Amino acid sequence: MPLVRIDLREGKSENYKKAIADGVHKALVEGAGVPADDRFQIITEHPPGAIICDPKYLGISRGDNAVIVQITVSAGRKLGQKKLLFLRMAEILAEKPGLRPEDLMINLAEVAWENWSFGNGEAQYAQ
Amino acid sequence: MPLVRIDLREGKSENYKKAIADGVHKALVEGAGVPADDRFQIITEHPPGAIICDPKYLGISRGDNAVIVQITVSAGRKLGQKKLLFLRMAEILAEKPGLRPEDLMINLAEVAWENWSFGNGEAQYAQ
Amino acid sequence: MPLVRIDLREGKSENYKKAIADGVHKALVEGAGVPADDRFQIITEHPPGAIICDPKYLGISRGDNAVIVQITVSAGRKLGQKKLLFLRMAEILAEKPGLRPEDLMINLAEVAWENWSFGNGEAQYAQ
Repeated sequence: MPLVRIDLREGKSENYKKAIADGVHKALVEGAGVPADDRFQIITEHPPGAIICDPKYLGISRGDNAVIVQITVSAGRKLGQKKLLFLRMAEILAEKPGLRPEDLMINLAEVAWENWSFGNGEAQYAQ
Repeated sequence: MPLVRIDLREGKSENYKKAIADGVHKALVEGAGVPADDRFQIITEHPPGAIICDPKYLGISRGDNAVIVQITVSAGRKLGQKKLLFLRMAEILAEKPGLRPEDLMINLAEVAWENWSFGNGEAQYAQ
Repeated sequence: MPLVRIDLREGKSENYKKAIADGVHKALVEGAGVPADDRFQIITEHPPGAIICDPKYLGISRGDNAVIVQITVSAGRKLGQKKLLFLRMAEILAEKPGLRPEDLMINLAEVAWENWSFGNGEAQYAQ
Protein backbone atom coordinates (compact mmCIF):
# COMPACT_ATOMS: atom_id res chain seq x y z
CA MET A 1 0.00 0.00 0.00
CA PRO A 2 2.62 2.49 0.53
CA LEU A 3 3.25 4.51 -2.60
CA VAL A 4 6.87 5.60 -2.38
CA ARG A 5 8.44 8.45 -4.32
CA ILE A 6 12.22 8.41 -4.24
CA ASP A 7 13.95 11.50 -5.64
CA LEU A 8 17.72 11.53 -6.08
CA ARG A 9 20.54 13.04 -8.06
CA GLU A 10 21.02 11.66 -11.58
CA GLY A 11 24.14 9.80 -12.61
CA LYS A 12 24.06 6.99 -10.07
CA SER A 13 24.64 3.40 -11.17
CA GLU A 14 21.82 0.92 -11.61
CA ASN A 15 23.18 -0.98 -8.61
CA TYR A 16 23.09 2.13 -6.46
CA LYS A 17 19.52 2.95 -7.41
CA LYS A 18 18.42 -0.65 -6.89
CA ALA A 19 20.03 -0.68 -3.44
CA ILE A 20 18.22 2.52 -2.49
CA ALA A 21 14.85 1.19 -3.68
CA ASP A 22 15.38 -2.22 -2.08
CA GLY A 23 16.53 -0.66 1.18
CA VAL A 24 13.60 1.73 1.41
CA HIS A 25 11.23 -1.20 0.96
CA LYS A 26 13.12 -3.37 3.45
CA ALA A 27 12.76 -0.63 6.05
CA LEU A 28 9.00 -0.45 5.43
CA VAL A 29 8.72 -4.21 5.90
CA GLU A 30 10.90 -4.34 9.02
CA GLY A 31 9.94 -1.06 10.58
CA ALA A 32 6.33 -0.47 9.63
CA GLY A 33 4.86 -3.91 9.18
CA VAL A 34 4.30 -3.58 5.43
CA PRO A 35 3.85 -6.93 3.62
CA ALA A 36 6.92 -7.93 1.61
CA ASP A 37 4.99 -8.00 -1.65
CA ASP A 38 3.26 -4.66 -1.04
CA ARG A 39 5.78 -2.66 -3.03
CA PHE A 40 5.01 0.34 -5.22
CA GLN A 41 7.83 2.78 -5.91
CA ILE A 42 8.61 5.60 -8.30
CA ILE A 43 12.27 6.57 -8.60
CA THR A 44 13.00 9.92 -10.22
CA GLU A 45 16.48 11.21 -11.03
CA HIS A 46 17.18 14.91 -11.15
CA PRO A 47 19.94 17.02 -12.70
CA PRO A 48 22.29 19.09 -10.53
CA GLY A 49 20.46 21.91 -8.80
CA ALA A 50 16.99 20.40 -9.08
CA ILE A 51 16.99 18.96 -5.58
CA ILE A 52 17.59 21.72 -3.08
CA CYS A 53 18.23 20.73 0.55
CA ASP A 54 19.50 23.17 3.09
CA PRO A 55 23.08 22.10 3.94
CA LYS A 56 22.71 22.42 7.70
CA TYR A 57 19.06 22.70 8.83
CA LEU A 58 18.72 21.30 12.38
CA GLY A 59 22.48 20.94 12.50
CA ILE A 60 22.55 18.10 9.98
CA SER A 61 25.24 18.32 7.31
CA ARG A 62 23.69 17.55 3.91
CA GLY A 63 25.60 17.17 0.66
CA ASP A 64 24.89 16.90 -3.04
CA ASN A 65 23.71 13.33 -2.78
CA ALA A 66 20.62 13.91 -0.67
CA VAL A 67 17.86 11.39 -1.21
CA ILE A 68 14.25 12.38 -0.52
CA VAL A 69 11.79 9.60 0.25
CA GLN A 70 8.12 10.55 0.40
CA ILE A 71 5.80 7.75 1.42
CA THR A 72 2.03 7.87 1.04
CA VAL A 73 0.69 5.35 3.50
CA SER A 74 -2.60 4.46 5.15
CA ALA A 75 -3.13 6.21 8.46
CA GLY A 76 -2.72 4.51 11.78
CA ARG A 77 0.95 3.80 12.38
CA LYS A 78 1.90 4.72 15.91
CA LEU A 79 4.80 7.03 16.68
CA GLY A 80 6.99 4.12 17.72
CA GLN A 81 6.55 2.48 14.33
CA LYS A 82 7.33 5.70 12.50
CA LYS A 83 10.49 6.19 14.53
CA LEU A 84 11.55 2.61 13.89
CA LEU A 85 10.87 3.03 10.17
CA PHE A 86 13.05 6.15 9.99
CA LEU A 87 15.85 4.56 11.98
CA ARG A 88 15.89 1.29 10.04
CA MET A 89 15.82 3.11 6.71
CA ALA A 90 18.85 5.17 7.65
CA GLU A 91 20.68 2.08 8.93
CA ILE A 92 19.88 -0.11 5.95
CA LEU A 93 20.82 2.53 3.37
CA ALA A 94 24.03 3.38 5.24
CA GLU A 95 25.05 -0.25 4.99
CA LYS A 96 24.09 -0.53 1.33
CA PRO A 97 24.67 1.43 -0.89
CA GLY A 98 26.46 3.50 1.72
CA LEU A 99 24.20 6.52 1.91
CA ARG A 100 25.22 8.98 4.61
CA PRO A 101 22.36 9.08 7.16
CA GLU A 102 22.56 12.87 7.01
CA ASP A 103 21.57 12.71 3.35
CA LEU A 104 18.29 10.87 3.90
CA MET A 105 15.10 12.91 4.21
CA ILE A 106 11.88 11.02 4.84
CA ASN A 107 8.28 12.23 4.87
CA LEU A 108 5.11 10.27 5.53
CA ALA A 109 1.80 11.41 4.04
CA GLU A 110 -1.09 9.52 5.60
CA VAL A 111 -4.36 8.81 3.81
CA ALA A 112 -7.53 6.84 4.57
CA TRP A 113 -7.49 3.08 3.97
CA GLU A 114 -10.34 3.39 1.47
CA ASN A 115 -8.26 5.72 -0.72
CA TRP A 116 -6.45 2.99 -2.68
CA SER A 117 -7.08 0.92 -5.75
CA PHE A 118 -4.40 -1.69 -6.48
CA GLY A 119 -5.87 -2.72 -9.79
CA ASN A 120 -9.11 -3.74 -11.47
CA GLY A 121 -10.81 -0.54 -10.36
CA GLU A 122 -11.54 -1.98 -6.93
CA ALA A 123 -11.01 -0.34 -3.53
CA GLN A 124 -9.34 -3.36 -2.01
CA TYR A 125 -8.84 -1.84 1.46
CA ALA A 126 -12.31 -0.36 1.80
CA GLN A 127 -13.84 -3.32 3.60
CA MET B 1 -9.28 21.12 -7.89
CA PRO B 2 -7.88 17.73 -8.13
CA LEU B 3 -4.16 17.84 -8.80
CA VAL B 4 -3.39 14.63 -10.62
CA ARG B 5 0.05 13.05 -10.97
CA ILE B 6 0.20 10.36 -13.63
CA ASP B 7 3.39 8.29 -13.71
CA LEU B 8 3.97 5.83 -16.54
CA ARG B 9 6.63 4.06 -18.54
CA GLU B 10 8.39 6.17 -21.19
CA GLY B 11 8.13 5.39 -24.87
CA LYS B 12 4.37 5.59 -25.29
CA SER B 13 2.85 7.52 -28.19
CA GLU B 14 1.38 10.97 -27.79
CA ASN B 15 -2.03 9.46 -28.52
CA TYR B 16 -1.60 6.89 -25.76
CA LYS B 17 -0.58 9.50 -23.20
CA LYS B 18 -3.41 11.80 -24.24
CA ALA B 19 -5.91 8.96 -23.88
CA ILE B 20 -4.62 8.18 -20.38
CA ALA B 21 -4.81 11.81 -19.28
CA ASP B 22 -8.23 12.34 -20.87
CA GLY B 23 -9.59 9.13 -19.38
CA VAL B 24 -8.36 9.90 -15.87
CA HIS B 25 -10.10 13.26 -16.06
CA LYS B 26 -13.29 11.78 -17.52
CA ALA B 27 -13.45 9.36 -14.59
CA LEU B 28 -13.10 12.24 -12.13
CA VAL B 29 -15.93 14.08 -13.83
CA GLU B 30 -18.24 11.07 -14.08
CA GLY B 31 -17.30 9.31 -10.88
CA ALA B 32 -16.40 12.03 -8.42
CA GLY B 33 -18.44 15.03 -9.53
CA VAL B 34 -15.44 17.13 -10.56
CA PRO B 35 -16.33 20.03 -12.91
CA ALA B 36 -15.29 19.35 -16.50
CA ASP B 37 -13.02 22.38 -16.61
CA ASP B 38 -11.38 21.64 -13.25
CA ARG B 39 -8.42 19.84 -14.79
CA PHE B 40 -4.85 19.99 -13.52
CA GLN B 41 -2.53 17.11 -14.43
CA ILE B 42 1.16 16.34 -14.44
CA ILE B 43 2.24 13.42 -16.60
CA THR B 44 5.72 12.04 -15.94
CA GLU B 45 7.38 9.34 -18.01
CA HIS B 46 9.96 7.06 -16.48
CA PRO B 47 12.68 4.82 -17.90
CA PRO B 48 12.57 1.03 -17.44
CA GLY B 49 13.03 0.06 -13.83
CA ALA B 50 12.03 3.41 -12.37
CA ILE B 51 8.44 2.38 -11.65
CA ILE B 52 8.43 -0.68 -9.42
CA CYS B 53 5.12 -2.44 -8.85
CA ASP B 54 4.90 -5.83 -7.26
CA PRO B 55 3.78 -8.25 -10.01
CA LYS B 56 1.16 -10.02 -7.92
CA TYR B 57 0.25 -8.14 -4.71
CA LEU B 58 -3.33 -8.98 -3.70
CA GLY B 59 -3.43 -11.52 -6.50
CA ILE B 60 -3.41 -8.90 -9.26
CA SER B 61 -1.10 -9.58 -12.19
CA ARG B 62 0.83 -6.40 -13.01
CA GLY B 63 3.13 -5.94 -15.98
CA ASP B 64 5.70 -3.45 -17.24
CA ASN B 65 3.07 -0.95 -18.29
CA ALA B 66 1.68 -0.12 -14.89
CA VAL B 67 0.24 3.37 -14.59
CA ILE B 68 0.16 5.08 -11.21
CA VAL B 69 -2.40 7.84 -10.70
CA GLN B 70 -2.13 9.88 -7.51
CA ILE B 71 -4.88 12.41 -7.01
CA THR B 72 -4.74 15.21 -4.46
CA VAL B 73 -8.34 16.20 -3.86
CA SER B 74 -10.36 18.16 -1.34
CA ALA B 75 -11.71 16.01 1.47
CA GLY B 76 -15.30 14.90 1.69
CA ARG B 77 -15.98 12.36 -1.05
CA LYS B 78 -17.96 9.46 0.35
CA LEU B 79 -16.84 5.88 -0.05
CA GLY B 80 -19.40 5.27 -2.77
CA GLN B 81 -17.97 8.08 -4.87
CA LYS B 82 -14.42 6.83 -4.41
CA LYS B 83 -15.44 3.33 -5.47
CA LEU B 84 -17.24 4.70 -8.50
CA LEU B 85 -14.23 6.82 -9.41
CA PHE B 86 -11.89 3.81 -9.26
CA LEU B 87 -14.25 1.62 -11.26
CA ARG B 88 -14.97 4.20 -13.97
CA MET B 89 -11.28 5.01 -14.36
CA ALA B 90 -10.43 1.36 -14.92
CA GLU B 91 -13.32 0.95 -17.38
CA ILE B 92 -12.58 4.11 -19.36
CA LEU B 93 -8.85 3.41 -19.66
CA ALA B 94 -9.49 -0.21 -20.62
CA GLU B 95 -11.63 0.98 -23.49
CA LYS B 96 -9.13 3.64 -24.56
CA PRO B 97 -6.14 3.36 -24.83
CA GLY B 98 -6.64 -0.26 -23.81
CA LEU B 99 -4.91 -0.26 -20.42
CA ARG B 100 -5.25 -3.57 -18.60
CA PRO B 101 -7.28 -2.87 -15.42
CA GLU B 102 -4.65 -4.81 -13.48
CA ASP B 103 -2.08 -2.20 -14.48
CA LEU B 104 -3.89 0.76 -12.96
CA MET B 105 -2.99 1.84 -9.44
CA ILE B 106 -4.89 4.77 -7.95
CA ASN B 107 -4.36 6.70 -4.75
CA LEU B 108 -6.33 9.60 -3.31
CA ALA B 109 -4.68 12.11 -1.00
CA GLU B 110 -7.26 14.33 0.65
CA VAL B 111 -6.61 17.89 1.76
CA ALA B 112 -8.66 20.74 3.21
CA TRP B 113 -10.69 22.88 0.82
CA GLU B 114 -8.81 25.99 1.90
CA ASN B 115 -5.49 24.46 0.78
CA TRP B 116 -5.70 25.52 -2.86
CA SER B 117 -4.82 28.54 -4.93
CA PHE B 118 -5.82 28.30 -8.59
CA GLY B 119 -4.12 31.51 -9.59
CA ASN B 120 -3.75 35.16 -8.63
CA GLY B 121 -2.57 34.20 -5.14
CA GLU B 122 -6.14 33.73 -3.93
CA ALA B 123 -7.55 30.85 -1.90
CA GLN B 124 -10.60 30.40 -4.11
CA TYR B 125 -12.14 27.57 -2.09
CA ALA B 126 -11.64 29.12 1.34
CA GLN B 127 -15.04 30.78 1.52
CA MET C 1 9.96 21.11 7.01
CA PRO C 2 8.00 21.90 4.03
CA LEU C 3 8.79 19.54 1.18
CA VAL C 4 8.09 21.51 -1.96
CA ARG C 5 7.53 20.04 -5.41
CA ILE C 6 7.76 22.60 -8.19
CA ASP C 7 6.66 21.41 -11.62
CA LEU C 8 7.18 23.63 -14.65
CA ARG C 9 7.68 23.63 -18.38
CA GLU C 10 11.16 22.66 -19.60
CA GLY C 11 13.39 25.08 -21.46
CA LYS C 12 13.60 27.84 -18.89
CA SER C 13 16.94 29.39 -18.00
CA GLU C 14 18.83 28.52 -14.84
CA ASN C 15 18.16 32.05 -13.61
CA TYR C 16 14.44 31.66 -14.17
CA LYS C 17 14.31 28.35 -12.30
CA LYS C 18 16.41 29.72 -9.47
CA ALA C 19 14.13 32.73 -9.14
CA ILE C 20 11.08 30.48 -8.97
CA ALA C 21 12.63 28.25 -6.32
CA ASP C 22 13.96 31.20 -4.31
CA GLY C 23 10.64 33.01 -4.52
CA VAL C 24 8.60 30.02 -3.41
CA HIS C 25 10.84 29.66 -0.38
CA LYS C 26 10.76 33.37 0.38
CA ALA C 27 6.96 33.23 0.41
CA LEU C 28 7.04 30.33 2.87
CA VAL C 29 9.34 32.27 5.16
CA GLU C 30 7.40 35.53 4.97
CA GLY C 31 3.91 34.13 4.71
CA ALA C 32 3.92 30.91 6.70
CA GLY C 33 6.59 31.42 9.34
CA VAL C 34 8.95 28.77 7.94
CA PRO C 35 12.56 29.13 9.17
CA ALA C 36 14.87 30.53 6.50
CA ASP C 37 17.09 27.45 6.55
CA ASP C 38 14.19 24.99 6.45
CA ARG C 39 14.34 24.55 2.69
CA PHE C 40 13.70 21.32 0.82
CA GLN C 41 12.62 21.57 -2.81
CA ILE C 42 12.37 19.35 -5.85
CA ILE C 43 12.13 21.10 -9.20
CA THR C 44 10.94 19.00 -12.13
CA GLU C 45 10.82 20.20 -15.71
CA HIS C 46 8.32 18.76 -18.15
CA PRO C 47 8.08 18.65 -21.94
CA PRO C 48 5.22 20.38 -23.80
CA GLY C 49 1.89 18.74 -23.07
CA ALA C 50 2.96 17.04 -19.85
CA ILE C 51 1.52 19.73 -17.60
CA ILE C 52 -2.15 20.15 -18.33
CA CYS C 53 -3.95 23.10 -16.75
CA ASP C 54 -7.40 24.15 -17.79
CA PRO C 55 -7.01 27.52 -19.57
CA LYS C 56 -9.92 29.22 -17.80
CA TYR C 57 -11.13 27.32 -14.72
CA LEU C 58 -12.66 29.79 -12.23
CA GLY C 59 -12.24 32.50 -14.82
CA ILE C 60 -8.45 32.57 -14.55
CA SER C 61 -6.57 32.73 -17.84
CA ARG C 62 -3.72 30.19 -17.77
CA GLY C 63 -1.04 29.82 -20.43
CA ASP C 64 1.69 27.39 -21.37
CA ASN C 65 3.97 28.54 -18.60
CA ALA C 66 1.88 27.40 -15.66
CA VAL C 67 3.88 26.53 -12.56
CA ILE C 68 2.46 24.05 -10.06
CA VAL C 69 3.74 24.23 -6.50
CA GLN C 70 2.72 21.42 -4.15
CA ILE C 71 3.84 21.87 -0.58
CA THR C 72 3.79 19.10 2.01
CA VAL C 73 3.76 20.86 5.36
CA SER C 74 3.02 20.04 8.98
CA ALA C 75 -0.58 20.68 9.95
CA GLY C 76 -1.70 23.67 11.94
CA ARG C 77 -1.36 26.77 9.83
CA LYS C 78 -4.44 28.92 10.19
CA LEU C 79 -6.43 30.12 7.19
CA GLY C 80 -4.96 33.62 7.45
CA GLN C 81 -1.45 32.23 7.13
CA LYS C 82 -2.39 30.13 4.14
CA LYS C 83 -3.97 33.12 2.42
CA LEU C 84 -0.92 35.23 3.13
CA LEU C 85 1.36 32.48 1.81
CA PHE C 86 -0.59 32.26 -1.46
CA LEU C 87 -0.69 36.02 -1.90
CA ARG C 88 2.99 36.58 -1.14
CA MET C 89 4.04 33.78 -3.45
CA ALA C 90 2.11 35.27 -6.35
CA GLU C 91 3.50 38.74 -5.61
CA ILE C 92 7.11 37.63 -5.22
CA LEU C 93 7.12 35.49 -8.37
CA ALA C 94 5.40 38.23 -10.36
CA GLU C 95 8.21 40.58 -9.44
CA LYS C 96 10.92 38.03 -10.18
CA PRO C 97 11.13 36.18 -12.56
CA GLY C 98 7.95 37.82 -13.80
CA LEU C 99 5.51 34.91 -13.52
CA ARG C 100 1.95 35.89 -14.35
CA PRO C 101 -0.10 35.37 -11.15
CA GLU C 102 -2.68 33.53 -13.24
CA ASP C 103 -0.04 30.89 -14.01
CA LEU C 104 0.68 29.94 -10.40
CA MET C 105 -1.19 27.00 -8.89
CA ILE C 106 -0.49 26.16 -5.27
CA ASN C 107 -1.60 23.22 -3.15
CA LEU C 108 -0.87 22.47 0.48
CA ALA C 109 -0.85 18.87 1.74
CA GLU C 110 -0.79 18.78 5.52
CA VAL C 111 0.78 15.97 7.55
CA ALA C 112 1.43 15.29 11.23
CA TRP C 113 4.51 16.84 12.80
CA GLU C 114 5.89 13.42 13.71
CA ASN C 115 5.92 12.40 10.03
CA TRP C 116 9.31 13.85 9.18
CA SER C 117 12.90 12.74 9.35
CA PHE C 118 15.44 15.39 8.33
CA GLY C 119 18.40 13.09 8.48
CA ASN C 120 20.12 10.52 10.71
CA GLY C 121 16.96 8.42 10.86
CA GLU C 122 15.51 10.57 13.62
CA ALA C 123 12.00 12.01 13.90
CA GLN C 124 13.18 15.49 14.80
CA TYR C 125 9.69 17.00 15.19
CA ALA C 126 8.17 14.17 17.21
CA GLN C 127 8.93 15.65 20.60
